[in-house]
Amino acid sequence: MPEKRVSVPSRCSFPVIGVIHTPFAEAAAAPIQPSRANRAKGVVEVFDPYVAGLRDLLGFERIWLIYWLDRAAVPESLVVTPFLDTVPHGVFATRAPSRPSGIGISAVRLLRGQGGFLDVEDVDMLDGTPLVDIKPYVPEFDSHPGSRAGWFDERRRDTRVADSRFER
Amino acid sequence: MPEKRVSVPSRCSFPVIGVIHTPFAEAAAAPIQPSRANRAKGVVEVFDPYVAGLRDLLGFERIWLIYWLDRAAVPESLVVTPFLDTVPHGVFATRAPSRPSGIGISAVRLLRGQGGFLDVEDVDMLDGTPLVDIKPYVPEFDSHPGSRAGWFDERRRDTRVADSRFER
Repeated sequence: MPEKRVSVPSRCSFPVIGVIHTPFAEAAAAPIQPSRANRAKGVVEVFDPYVAGLRDLLGFERIWLIYWLDRAAVPESLVVTPFLDTVPHGVFATRAPSRPSGIGISAVRLLRGQGGFLDVEDVDMLDGTPLVDIKPYVPEFDSHPGSRAGWFDERRRDTRVADSRFER
Repeated sequence: MPEKRVSVPSRCSFPVIGVIHTPFAEAAAAPIQPSRANRAKGVVEVFDPYVAGLRDLLGFERIWLIYWLDRAAVPESLVVTPFLDTVPHGVFATRAPSRPSGIGISAVRLLRGQGGFLDVEDVDMLDGTPLVDIKPYVPEFDSHPGSRAGWFDERRRDTRVADSRFER
């Protein structure tokens, strides 16, 4: 237990820097994760004031998209039954889109880019999803291939698409 | 280029669900990434209203901490010289803490937990950092070991700690 109490603000706020265009108009039928997206293609549109920040990004095979899950329902419970299981788990032990802070992260494949538009593959978010940040995927920082993964390791069913359970 | 314009809000806002306690009171000397943190230990404190969401998290070897880089300076330029290089890059092609949307992601090792407190290893954020979300690290979704990493692949210097360049 930490020795001293630290006071933090109760909320935080971020600018939306762009929008993610995907083939998925609604949650039912959207892939549940990039790895199950069957190479679905999307376009990341970065707004003009932020385009200068993309310099040298094309050298990376994958990028992290950090985005706002703006159409996921506010969770009624902190214990949820995710797409990949029939047993309820704490929401922080799942990647379910309905979460107290509706932030999504997806490591998508970067195909090409021009100006403020990036062609990407393996998208799993809804069309029109607000983009909050882009980071390069760096294996030294992000790749832990043998990492034990709790209930995911026991659920190897070939579940690929979502349903409407987390819709608003 | 997408066919239709999509309108998105200009900002988004999230609740802070906890606070991350680490040994690093200031940016100078903090590790630049978990992989260079020399197993630095920290404690994640999840606030009471969110503790129920932690159920089953302990089965995961690593977890994603998503947090607010609350003490990083607002960037004066979208082109920055990161800790790992002497050449400037677009901020979205770096993991620099000063970014338009100050969101950090770190895959830390989960050692143990009790109630709302999680003992973690490989922390690289400042003491008192506001926590926004926790997600399980799932290799199928998150691990891409051979992914080409642009300028990072060319800069293999043993840089481990930050300096004050991104401080407020």
